[in-house]
Amino acid sequence: MTEMQNPYLMFLGDVGDQLGAKTAQGIVDWRPEWCLGQMRLEGCKADLGIKDISIEDSIKSGAKTMVIGIVNSGGYLPSHWTSKIIDAMEAGLDIASGLHIRLSDIPEIKEAAARTGRKLFDVRHPDQEISVGKGIRRTGKRLLAVGTDCSVGKMYTALAVEKEMKARGMDVGFCATGQTGIFIAGQGISIDAVVADFISGAVELLSPENKPDHWDIIEGQGSLFHPSFAGVSLGLLHGAQADALVLCHEPTRLHMRGTPHQPLPDLQDCMDLNLKTAQLTNPNARFVGISVNTSTLTIEEGDKYLQELATKFNLPCEDAYRTGVASIVDLLQ
Amino acid sequence: MTEMQNPYLMFLGDVGDQLGAKTAQGIVDWRPEWCLGQMRLEGCKADLGIKDISIEDSIKSGAKTMVIGIVNSGGYLPSHWTSKIIDAMEAGLDIASGLHIRLSDIPEIKEAAARTGRKLFDVRHPDQEISVGKGIRRTGKRLLAVGTDCSVGKMYTALAVEKEMKARGMDVGFCATGQTGIFIAGQGISIDAVVADFISGAVELLSPENKPDHWDIIEGQGSLFHPSFAGVSLGLLHGAQADALVLCHEPTRLHMRGTPHQPLPDLQDCMDLNLKTAQLTNPNARFVGISVNTSTLTIEEGDKYLQELATKFNLPCEDAYRTGVASIVDLLQ
Repeated sequence: MTEMQNPYLMFLGDVGDQLGAKTAQGIVDWRPEWCLGQMRLEGCKADLGIKDISIEDSIKSGAKTMVIGIVNSGGYLPSHWTSKIIDAMEAGLDIASGLHIRLSDIPEIKEAAARTGRKLFDVRHPDQEISVGKGIRRTGKRLLAVGTDCSVGKMYTALAVEKEMKARGMDVGFCATGQTGIFIAGQGISIDAVVADFISGAVELLSPENKPDHWDIIEGQGSLFHPSFAGVSLGLLHGAQADALVLCHEPTRLHMRGTPHQPLPDLQDCMDLNLKTAQLTNPNARFVGISVNTSTLTIEEGDKYLQELATKFNLPCEDAYRTGVASIVDLLQ
Repeated sequence: MTEMQNPYLMFLGDVGDQLGAKTAQGIVDWRPEWCLGQMRLEGCKADLGIKDISIEDSIKSGAKTMVIGIVNSGGYLPSHWTSKIIDAMEAGLDIASGLHIRLSDIPEIKEAAARTGRKLFDVRHPDQEISVGKGIRRTGKRLLAVGTDCSVGKMYTALAVEKEMKARGMDVGFCATGQTGIFIAGQGISIDAVVADFISGAVELLSPENKPDHWDIIEGQGSLFHPSFAGVSLGLLHGAQADALVLCHEPTRLHMRGTPHQPLPDLQDCMDLNLKTAQLTNPNARFVGISVNTSTLTIEEGDKYLQELATKFNLPCEDAYRTGVASIVDLLQ
């Protein structure tokens, strides 16, 4: 896998609201030292809370890649974005994009990349050769964040575990399986965009054999209980061969995301099915914690909820954002 | 979905052995009335057991599509195949291919199709717009063939159920999810070739709402216990919303296909996991039979095995090829 070079210049274009810059914000939250500044065009309604900077000044500060971590509507690029992207390449920056549209599908951008010798990264579109998964045991240790639903904090939890392990001097890496994670890691594969036959193979490629004490912390996707995406989640689980699983959960959600008719699974049910299926490729798989996004509860309610879960499941239960994941990492060290 | 027009002229090229024509043979087995004849080039080592016929004579007999249901090695088309394919289009036939390489990626073929106005079907490569699955219940009835492993007779079983239901005057259709099945149905989606996010959505598209008494018989793929392909199998299961499941099995297999380290699942385990996960999108899902490929056993051994299974699981147990599936359809009528 080719790695994006950092530091980054964060390009926001004239995105219409803060939510449209969610990916960019995630990068700033987790890799502030890589984000030299933001470039916003007239009318931009988002702000990453970092300094505004020009292409030229970013290069003086060492920028290597301009990151388009925003959502545009309509699936095409406005011409005033295209010209800025070409300016950046001419000034010496690679371009990395999380847009649905491929940079290389835009003739002017493709031509400019060829002319300037700069690289284009379309993180939503896997470009590497992926093989069918084999399920052969690999050395090294692996942790996978799984979920009761989509968007319950799997990436956040995985990054928190990576950070905590790093702080303790453990040998650890983060394996990104979605677009925000890929920008944060500098590499990875958007697992939901690979051809269905290659889901587990892509994860085997992302987390290859490693030293016995090395931990790969693998970002999960979707949920085994989501009627739209469970196939992705199962292939990811089998490819990960996780030794350790962390269940991620959002306790106030009323139904599975995007499917109002679909109830959330019971936590025990969800852990049972994840464990049962994980053991196909790693018989020693076990749950080592539960990570709950308690941001919609008061602190008292959140603490009470975490304590109840810890008692019920006899596992460390944390809010990765609010309380950290030290107790989970304690179990693994 | 565009439908291929039949009848077919079966093109075998100069394929090196009978196994290379396995897809073509499956079409002849299940749709003999569509297969007007075969066209073989010098050196061809396969024979479908139907008459050899020229492009011109096939057209006189009413042929609409030339089917390339063979495996070529190396991923390119020899030039003497290309010229025959172009001859067929010029004579008035559409071309349908099960090759890995896309017909439209071969410039001479693409040009000839544009010039003659003939259609190109690459059945391995889904070309329709597919949405994310929703898991919303659809009217009509559905049966899905699931497996302990790959290549244990799921397509064969589904087609046998369709045939038996048709013979009884039931309202039934076969939904193809793999290349041989697509040639047999004249339409379908190679489910393992769609983008991972769209597995269940593709099956929802294949088997849309229908009359309450209509049965869609859906071809399964892979196995929930196959470390390479389980993601495909789970997405397919969720998209199918099957009312009825048939477990397909090959009793003498020593390990999961292609993965010598991976043991076969226990049958009860396999049924439990399929049922558990199927119930996410259809709480009424149930097993209605077991279909065993007993061809590697003697008839006595096979009969004994089927009887033992029937007693153990209290379900109709058949060899779809040898004994038919009447007892399974009895349960559904």
